[in-house]
Amino acid sequence: MAKLIALYKKPEDQIAFDKHYNEVHVPITEKIPGLREIKVTKFSVTPMGKEAPYYLMCEMFYDSQEDLKNGLRSAEGKASGKDLMSFAGDLVTLMIGEED
Amino acid sequence: MAKLIALYKKPEDQIAFDKHYNEVHVPITEKIPGLREIKVTKFSVTPMGKEAPYYLMCEMFYDSQEDLKNGLRSAEGKASGKDLMSFAGDLVTLMIGEED
Repeated sequence: MAKLIALYKKPEDQIAFDKHYNEVHVPITEKIPGLREIKVTKFSVTPMGKEAPYYLMCEMFYDSQEDLKNGLRSAEGKASGKDLMSFAGDLVTLMIGEED
Repeated sequence: MAKLIALYKKPEDQIAFDKHYNEVHVPITEKIPGLREIKVTKFSVTPMGKEAPYYLMCEMFYDSQEDLKNGLRSAEGKASGKDLMSFAGDLVTLMIGEED
């Protein structure tokens, strides 16, 4: 299965980040054609008890790499990307992957 | 659901890494008590077409944070950690998280 992964570093204002993420960014992103599922993981610590280097991970699942590319190129995909850059451009790392 | 995430940077020798990962590390890790599932994602590029900053992600699922901690503390968990450090100590980032 094709996956787009977004890894976010810890925002300075976590409350504002969470609010925008949940109330604005996820609803925009959910409209992307071909997107099958969104899974969100929140990180806490490393196994050694240190603060995790990332705050949150979002996994976005598509049936194929082609669907993922088409989703990102769509108007809805571009709207999601534009919103992302507006509130987390300096925090996010995006990667395309394939889950075994 | 509780998750342990391992993010690996790109190894110099991918063939040797994949061989050790699949033939040695995963079988050791699968023995950890309480571990429900392992999901492996291989990364390719960023949406902008650049090389992804990580090579591989392993997600290890447990029923609870308590189970995850007990798994890591177990003899099998320690054996997995020792093996990990032997072949990928300089490549791996480990984080504990909770999937919504």
